[in-house]
Amino acid sequence: MVEFTVFKGSKEGKIVESKTTKELKANEVLIKVTHSGLCGTDEHYKHEDMGLGHEGAGVIEEIGSSVTTYRKGDSVGWGYQHDACGHCKQCLTGHETLCPERKMYGYADHDQGSFAHYAIWKADFIFKIPDSIPREYAAPLNCGGATVFNVLHSFSARSTHRVGIIGFGGLGHLAIQFAHKMGCQVVVFSGTDSKKDEAMKLGADEFVATKGAKELQVSGPIDHLLITTSFQPDWKLFLPIMAPGGTLYPLTVSPDDFKIPYMPIIAGELKIQGSLVAARQVHREMFEFAAHHQIRPIIQKFPMTVEGIEESMKTLDEGKMRYRGVLVV
Amino acid sequence: MVEFTVFKGSKEGKIVESKTTKELKANEVLIKVTHSGLCGTDEHYKHEDMGLGHEGAGVIEEIGSSVTTYRKGDSVGWGYQHDACGHCKQCLTGHETLCPERKMYGYADHDQGSFAHYAIWKADFIFKIPDSIPREYAAPLNCGGATVFNVLHSFSARSTHRVGIIGFGGLGHLAIQFAHKMGCQVVVFSGTDSKKDEAMKLGADEFVATKGAKELQVSGPIDHLLITTSFQPDWKLFLPIMAPGGTLYPLTVSPDDFKIPYMPIIAGELKIQGSLVAARQVHREMFEFAAHHQIRPIIQKFPMTVEGIEESMKTLDEGKMRYRGVLVV
Repeated sequence: MVEFTVFKGSKEGKIVESKTTKELKANEVLIKVTHSGLCGTDEHYKHEDMGLGHEGAGVIEEIGSSVTTYRKGDSVGWGYQHDACGHCKQCLTGHETLCPERKMYGYADHDQGSFAHYAIWKADFIFKIPDSIPREYAAPLNCGGATVFNVLHSFSARSTHRVGIIGFGGLGHLAIQFAHKMGCQVVVFSGTDSKKDEAMKLGADEFVATKGAKELQVSGPIDHLLITTSFQPDWKLFLPIMAPGGTLYPLTVSPDDFKIPYMPIIAGELKIQGSLVAARQVHREMFEFAAHHQIRPIIQKFPMTVEGIEESMKTLDEGKMRYRGVLVV
Repeated sequence: MVEFTVFKGSKEGKIVESKTTKELKANEVLIKVTHSGLCGTDEHYKHEDMGLGHEGAGVIEEIGSSVTTYRKGDSVGWGYQHDACGHCKQCLTGHETLCPERKMYGYADHDQGSFAHYAIWKADFIFKIPDSIPREYAAPLNCGGATVFNVLHSFSARSTHRVGIIGFGGLGHLAIQFAHKMGCQVVVFSGTDSKKDEAMKLGADEFVATKGAKELQVSGPIDHLLITTSFQPDWKLFLPIMAPGGTLYPLTVSPDDFKIPYMPIIAGELKIQGSLVAARQVHREMFEFAAHHQIRPIIQKFPMTVEGIEESMKTLDEGKMRYRGVLVV
């Protein structure tokens, strides 16, 4: 049995430092956490009695007796998914994120998360971090990076397409880099011009300030539109700039209904594509691609303490994070 | 110049018999109309001063001087689209239904329609009707048939998939046949059990009455769900029976917003796919497929007169059409 520190949410929304005791099973690894990214989803769960954090990075300290794919000392990460059945249609076709028995952050394994000093996970659901990516940068790629890479990689986007990104934050600033390196033309939509220079430096080709706009000026229609903001955009602005047959990807969580004018969807054969997180092979390819192209999140560091976590959440809440918070043990 | 009878809508919603005078251009054909299907869309336009009808079938009576692909006497049909630019990206890739200069029913060529005695169309936008399909059955395939075939043929449906069809009317009864002959498992959702026998005869494998249902009992999840009703379904009933990664196709026109619970779309990686009508090659393949598999609409005939058209629209309006109205000259 191993006992270690985890940081949990609580009914009042305060972060609570707590101890978890777990057994290391044969097919699992014990990871000494060094970093964790902070995602908007973590805030959604801060009122729950559960280990928070799902953008983990660390070093393997011990391996279970049947683990052959990792060794002590390996630099590894993990994300949203912890397990799947391994034998359903989805698992057999590389879509284990959709397995009916999937174990996902928020829904399973409430005794631990990546806001912690250690974690124990099934070896088949962690990822080797490429040597060239320091763990502080690798951590946010495990959810934020994998989420946007999955959209651009697993559906119908091609390098000749124009990719629009609504919102220039934790997801958006990674989506710009991935889409740019995939060869796409990248158009960023943000409230004001304040982040324009940074967006262009990351690979955006166009930057459009949307606040108060009556219509959006772009140099050509958008084939894929990633909605990375926590609110739904004003569709009347965005539908007219979509390419025929284009795709909209709502990426953030929302308790509201999804609501959009009906006829432009039919008349333009537009597609609304739900996308969760990357399946494991896609996650691996995301890391390889990020390593090859030196794609890195821009991070803001906080200590892995109750105060550090609360401070990081406050920064995110106030819209001041530039651009992804990383907690450092 | 040719002068012929067309039946138009009018401000008051009355059908008006009228005369159109048109020149037969070099790349056009003059078609003697023998039949026209009646589609819900025609009712939407009955308050407009325009030639109604877009499920035309007839015989070529004259060809323009440059037409080489048709001859006098050919049995032909046409549908929603009359023209496209021929040189844009969409036209060059077999998606001319999405051409920005497309000419579509309701938006162009208001001087004629398929509720008429004759029509003149560009030869490149009409279709040879297979010899084995009598024109009274071919007519409704030009929009109703092409619309549902396009959904099943042009996106991601495969023969091993389970296809759900909401609504058992003009579109639905054709969708059942196409999906069945494509090898899919077909599940029909209708208000009551009253049409069950007919649906099973056409190829449905399951029939689910939805009226008053708290949850829907199906033998397995639905990969593709065609919404052929004029109203949007109760998504809370249908989302739980969708397969992971499944697709929803809203097919009818609606002035309302499209509104659907948000999180099931993300969590299940569901897709909402807009689909208009078939591009020309798809339309051709639809006719070939229908001919090969003897797919026929079930029709109810009305005379091609003011009274006949009004009677057919009333029948459709009252939900009494079994299952597609056809006007006969």
